[in-house]
Amino acid sequence: MLHDPNRVYVFDTTLRDGEQVPGCQLTTPEKIEIARELEALGVDIIEAGFPISSPGDFQSVVEISKAVTHPTVCALTRANKGDIDAAVQALQYAKHPRIHTGIGSSDQHIKHKFNSTRDEILARAVEAVKYAKGFVEDIEFYAEDAGRADIEFLARMVEAVIAAGATVVNIPDTNGYCLPDQYGAKIKFLKENVKNIDKAIISVHCHNDLGLATANSVAGLQNGARQIEGTINGIGERAGNTSIEEVVMILKTHQLGLHTNINARQFYEISRMVSTQMRMPVQPNKAIVGANAFAHSSGIHQDGFLKNRENYEIIKPEDVGFPSASIVLTARSGRHALKYHLERLGFTLDKPTLDDVYKRFLTLADSKLDINDEDLQSLMAVPEVK
Amino acid sequence: MLHDPNRVYVFDTTLRDGEQVPGCQLTTPEKIEIARELEALGVDIIEAGFPISSPGDFQSVVEISKAVTHPTVCALTRANKGDIDAAVQALQYAKHPRIHTGIGSSDQHIKHKFNSTRDEILARAVEAVKYAKGFVEDIEFYAEDAGRADIEFLARMVEAVIAAGATVVNIPDTNGYCLPDQYGAKIKFLKENVKNIDKAIISVHCHNDLGLATANSVAGLQNGARQIEGTINGIGERAGNTSIEEVVMILKTHQLGLHTNINARQFYEISRMVSTQMRMPVQPNKAIVGANAFAHSSGIHQDGFLKNRENYEIIKPEDVGFPSASIVLTARSGRHALKYHLERLGFTLDKPTLDDVYKRFLTLADSKLDINDEDLQSLMAVPEVK
Repeated sequence: MLHDPNRVYVFDTTLRDGEQVPGCQLTTPEKIEIARELEALGVDIIEAGFPISSPGDFQSVVEISKAVTHPTVCALTRANKGDIDAAVQALQYAKHPRIHTGIGSSDQHIKHKFNSTRDEILARAVEAVKYAKGFVEDIEFYAEDAGRADIEFLARMVEAVIAAGATVVNIPDTNGYCLPDQYGAKIKFLKENVKNIDKAIISVHCHNDLGLATANSVAGLQNGARQIEGTINGIGERAGNTSIEEVVMILKTHQLGLHTNINARQFYEISRMVSTQMRMPVQPNKAIVGANAFAHSSGIHQDGFLKNRENYEIIKPEDVGFPSASIVLTARSGRHALKYHLERLGFTLDKPTLDDVYKRFLTLADSKLDINDEDLQSLMAVPEVK
Repeated sequence: MLHDPNRVYVFDTTLRDGEQVPGCQLTTPEKIEIARELEALGVDIIEAGFPISSPGDFQSVVEISKAVTHPTVCALTRANKGDIDAAVQALQYAKHPRIHTGIGSSDQHIKHKFNSTRDEILARAVEAVKYAKGFVEDIEFYAEDAGRADIEFLARMVEAVIAAGATVVNIPDTNGYCLPDQYGAKIKFLKENVKNIDKAIISVHCHNDLGLATANSVAGLQNGARQIEGTINGIGERAGNTSIEEVVMILKTHQLGLHTNINARQFYEISRMVSTQMRMPVQPNKAIVGANAFAHSSGIHQDGFLKNRENYEIIKPEDVGFPSASIVLTARSGRHALKYHLERLGFTLDKPTLDDVYKRFLTLADSKLDINDEDLQSLMAVPEVK
């Protein structure tokens, strides 16, 4: 497959792997709204649902296919004809349809989920890809639980499904088990040992059970993968999927020679939309999109930040659509930050007065959580006690 | 310093780096309660505050020193005598006191924060360590913004402060900038090039601005660091600090030959306590401690989970104190999961009846977010429509 060797494709599964989470279910019109926002964000592939799983999911794939123009629309299936038939039907209006089929690749899944053998599973994988390829050109294959799979068998499976027509091979760390060096080594092994690997794009699909989804995805990209699967805000099954916003901003911050087509300034807005519509709160300390992600509060940090924002800021908040970096005063804030905010409010103080106000500020801040503009106004209104 | 070479010390800064976040401020009694819980969790060092920063912080260090027995109690300072004097005084009741002093190590900080030179900063670092060492034996030195520091200068600084008496050298990635391979390489360089490095413990202190704090911390440990600094729930400045629970569970799940003294079964309880007291919500998809961290919802996953829990579970929820793994039914749930929950409620169904109930279940689940036990009871009460 011909493609820019440094281009990383972004595959969003907010509406499939994200939406299957307890409490996150959306109506079809809500899904369409998010799909349109994902298109504006610039994602390359939208996984729109798992058509066989319920009538509502089927209909959502149909309607999202109609609603978006540029992104590929992808439908999930297991490795069987019934699932694939449903996906084909659901994708009939997609301008760029993709079927995402696959089966377990670890011995744990082969034995304890499918009660089967490696050879039998390999045959089912190949058969599913060939069958799907009869309807749709763009076929992605997922080797479920690849994170725990025997690497030689995984390589055999990847080679066989590419030969059968897969255009993308997804190597999921389904259980969020791998360390970054392990996951990177898996991708490297496939890149070096699967002889037809250049005919497909390797995709990384990581879960966050140990807090490593982002690091694992980046390790995969550093070792040759060129598609990253994830969700907005990292939502998804259990501890969730890779946060798309984190991986994209790592590629923008570090010189890895890789780029995506994402408009990062849309991140803030789409993060809020997904959080609200899917009823899934984003913790304030979430990287990139959390409410505090760019808030400097300690005295040392505020002082350094005010001297030169690059002392404590590697990404400009406006680059991901944040209104602006916010400094909130607390008992841990220093004189410099207090002076800055008082001047912003129109109070110019000489040093002895600032010292005095700072003492009263600390007493107030010890009894109150955050000090806002109104508090600062009151502080200045109180006559100074000598 | 003699110590078990495979033992990783856990340094908790929930009450200092965590507590300085807007909205997270605690009263002294609240801090004592959390400190006691941290002692029960088995952390080795509690960073109790930054005594010079406010009278409340000073008092908290005093009271936490009195309240706990086993952990080292640590107080933060900048590299000056006033800060160190305050810390010494605040730590007077600590059974195992530690002073944590330091200064910027990157050229960005040296020039744009301190308006100084490398040599001048190095001299101030050494002077601060020597001064603190006059009062307290256990001195940790932080090389602020080490993540962006010139590695040769960082090595010089580390060597100088160890020679001056530092027992622990903290290499913070203050701005959460590094990739795991870069951060690991920094620690490896120090381990191999600082000639007195074996006289101190290397500590990792990572921030999560790019979602990499946990991965960077583990990379540091894999390359020779033996103390990890973090907070409960990963709270802290901006996108927060390393989540202690994530690093500890990685060390328990992977055979890296490293161990901590942490009682992981306390994680669930302390996570809730910190979240409630500090008013800092934990998102449901937070690794290890999020409400959904062990919840299986999709049909494929529920089916696999019910066949053998290890298909989709690498950590047992009870190992981190969770009440139990929960399965919630949604429109994405399969027949197997529905049957399981109906049987749990006392309904045994033959296949055709199950097929029929499953159809009605899907219609209900498409219109309702979660299906709970009551919904299942109603579903069974409705006469079947043929």
